[in-house]
Parts: sequence; C-alpha cells; structure tokens
Amino acid sequence: MTEEVSVPESHPRYESLLTRHRIEAGVERGITSKQGLIAEGRGEAFDYLLGEETTDSADRAARAAAAYLLSAEHAVVSVNGNAAALVPEELVELADVTGAELEVNLFNRTRERIEAIADYLREHGAEGVKGLDADARIPGLDHERAKVDSDGIYDADVVLVPLEDGDRAEALGEMGKTELVVDLNPLSRSPQVATVPIVDNIIRAIPTITEHARELAGDPAAQQAAIETFDADAALADAKRRIREVEA
Amino acid sequence: MTEEVSVPESHPRYESLLTRHRIEAGVERGITSKQGLIAEGRGEAFDYLLGEETTDSADRAARAAAAYLLSAEHAVVSVNGNAAALVPEELVELADVTGAELEVNLFNRTRERIEAIADYLREHGAEGVKGLDADARIPGLDHERAKVDSDGIYDADVVLVPLEDGDRAEALGEMGKTELVVDLNPLSRSPQVATVPIVDNIIRAIPTITEHARELAGDPAAQQAAIETFDADAALADAKRRIREVEA
Repeated sequence: MTEEVSVPESHPRYESLLTRHRIEAGVERGITSKQGLIAEGRGEAFDYLLGEETTDSADRAARAAAAYLLSAEHAVVSVNGNAAALVPEELVELADVTGAELEVNLFNRTRERIEAIADYLREHGAEGVKGLDADARIPGLDHERAKVDSDGIYDADVVLVPLEDGDRAEALGEMGKTELVVDLNPLSRSPQVATVPIVDNIIRAIPTITEHARELAGDPAAQQAAIETFDADAALADAKRRIREVEA
Repeated sequence: MTEEVSVPESHPRYESLLTRHRIEAGVERGITSKQGLIAEGRGEAFDYLLGEETTDSADRAARAAAAYLLSAEHAVVSVNGNAAALVPEELVELADVTGAELEVNLFNRTRERIEAIADYLREHGAEGVKGLDADARIPGLDHERAKVDSDGIYDADVVLVPLEDGDRAEALGEMGKTELVVDLNPLSRSPQVATVPIVDNIIRAIPTITEHARELAGDPAAQQAAIETFDADAALADAKRRIREVEA
C-alpha cells in the first residue's frame, strides 16, 4: 500500500533508494524525527561495512527470533518512528504470522507522533495498535521514556525491539523479558544486552523473520531447536569480524 | 557567535552534543537538509569506529592541506549545508588565516538554501561569500550539480571540499585542481580521488588545518616539506586499519 519509488527491484541501488523514499515519506508524515534521520545514516554506514546483505549469522538470528515470537505467551513488537517508516507493511505481516501485537514506543515521545505512527500502521493493515494508553512504566527509566501499555510491552514475555536505545534495551532485559533486537551496530549496547541480536538492516530483517516464522509455525520442536542452537555471542562476534574485514 | 549548548567542554560527550546542537540549529535555519542529517549519521558511525579523535595520520593530512592552501595561487573552500551548520566560525577563521575564499556549493542546490548558508557564514564573520553567481560549470556533471562561480571554484588551483559527493570530487580532480577532502569514510570515493584525504570529523579537522596554517604561514620551506612528506595512500590505509581494529 505504500506508494513506492519507480525503480526496478533488479536495480543495484534498489534497496537504498527504497529506504530513502520511505524515510522521506516518514518525514512528510511526521513519523521520522531529526534524530531518526541521523540514526538512519548511522545504520547506513554499518550496513555498508557489513556488505549490505543478510549474513548467514543474521539469518540464524532471525530464525531464533521467529521461534521466540511463535513460542511466546505474549509477544509484542515495539515500533518506533524509523521502524514504522521503513517497514510498515512488513511489521503488520510479521505480527499476523506470529500472533504478536504491535506497540508504538518512542524515545522522543509526543502524542502527535504516536498517533501519526499508529495511523500509518493502520493504513498498512494493522489492527489494535497499542502504545496509546501508556498506563505502565518500565522500572529504572525516566518517566517519559518508561511509558508502555500495561497490557502490551509491560505484560509481554517476548519483545522484538528494532532500533532500540541502549538504556531501554537494558531496562527491558532487567524486567526478565526475552529481548529480540534488530541493530546494525554490533558494538552498541542494545544488541549486546539482547537475548537475540539481529545485526541486519530492518528492511531485510523483518521479512526474514516473517519467512522463518511461516516455516516454523506449528512445529514446536523446530522452534525449540532454533532457540537452542542460537549463540548470541557468536552472532555479535561474526558481525564484528565482518566489519574488520573491510578491504585493505 | 553561535549560541552554544550549555555543556562544559570537559564533558565526555561534549563534541557529540555540540554537533547535535549545531545540526539542529542548521535544520531550523534551513541550512541542513534531510540528506544532510542522514549524512551526519553516516559520519557519526565512521567517527565512532575511528575512535572519535584526530589520528596522527589525519593530523599530518591536515598539515599538508594547510600547506597547499597557503601556497596556492587561488584557494577556495567549498561550503555545503553540513559544513556551514557544523563549523561556521571555524571556516571563516580558516579562510582568514590562509587567504582562501569561501564558496557555497550544494549538491541539492536551491537559491533559498544557498542564501541561507551565505547569510549564516556572514553572521559568523565571513566577507565576500561566493557561490551565488554560479556562472560557470564543472565539466562532466549534471547541469545543476556543476554550477560554480567563474571567479571562485572554477578558477581555483586548490579547493578544500569538506563532505563532498564522489562524482563532484572526481570531476574537480579531472579539472586538474589540487583537491583537499574532509571525509570520515576512507572507503568512499571523495577521499580516494583527493590529493589530500583528511579522514577526520570536520568539527576537529577545520580547526586543526587552521592551527597548522598559523604555524606554516610565511615559511614556504616548511610548507613544501609538509606537502612533499605527505602520502595520501598511507593516510587512507591508516584510516582503514583503524576501522579494522574495532574491538573483538
């Protein structure tokens, strides 16, 4: 439903042009903030160093994340401005396939942006978007940054937090939640505190998780295997190695 | 003259907070574009990987750049939106010390942004800002992206282009100009085609060039030595090595 840029998928810069187009649309809709644009640039640099592809290691992480979402009591996907701008339909599809809920959760929270993002997700097929009540608090964070829904992230046993701030990732981990993080910088705190760090571009990572979820759905043994064989430290080490292999 | 953020210089995040503050002011003034914010993020990621400090290698490059500016027939500093937003006073000071001219030159050129940037530089002490005539063209580039002043960049033998696009850096090099490039990504084309690639944050690089220029001023032998001992390939290799040394 997103009005896309008219570039064929075979174009070598397709993904990058698509990203730019969606980010610009996000700015126009009041979804992407100034900080979001800067964060997008940081991500681009790391993606460039990682070769702009989903590594085998990131694919295994996506599979483990799918397994956690499917086997959760209550899974919630936290959605911030860049996530909504970049992969609105893909997030709705992931929620559909895994039975997870979508909750808008912003670092720089304003009622206006929360509503703009919830509307955007609804336009892309989401039902029952959470994050507007904000009637519970994550312990150990500033008041504004701690706000979540009591029947959403606060209650969840598994949360997928793409592009999350380090402090919040840490606080969610301390609540005992299984945390699945998508982040392109393997050195930043969020992937380091995650149960499953997915070091990949969100544009590729979300559809990859959905694909694995389709395959793992209804197969608890396969889900269990994907969870048990996943090694978070090895995933982070792989991503760091990729960066170190930058051509001489 | 810039109204600064109230953080002491000793603060560990001083430079990063100052950068954010200046970039936000740039957005408010219509100087920093959406693409500029994304580019700022990309720079932040590389600066992080380089250790957020001016390496010895980058310092030698800054010294060579100072020597080229001082010994030029006609030196011009090309100023885009991010450069103006991040180091307005520092650019004016560099121009004063080296006798270089300032020319506003944008990748996404609009009359409005050119004038906003020229005004901003004048508020920070600049006189005779070029780039508003745009009565000459760099050969080999799209019409809009080729525009320069005939008595500015077009006529210059030495140009300092901080944060330049790869195509334009290449086209300027093909005109036979001595090109001094400030860029945090040692893998991008602009520093690779430069006579002097300065792989450093513009916030540190411009004052460093000015400092060297003060020291080298009036000493042609020292200027010659700084130019002759500088090795561009070694500078790029040093920067790439820094990135590869990212902690395991």
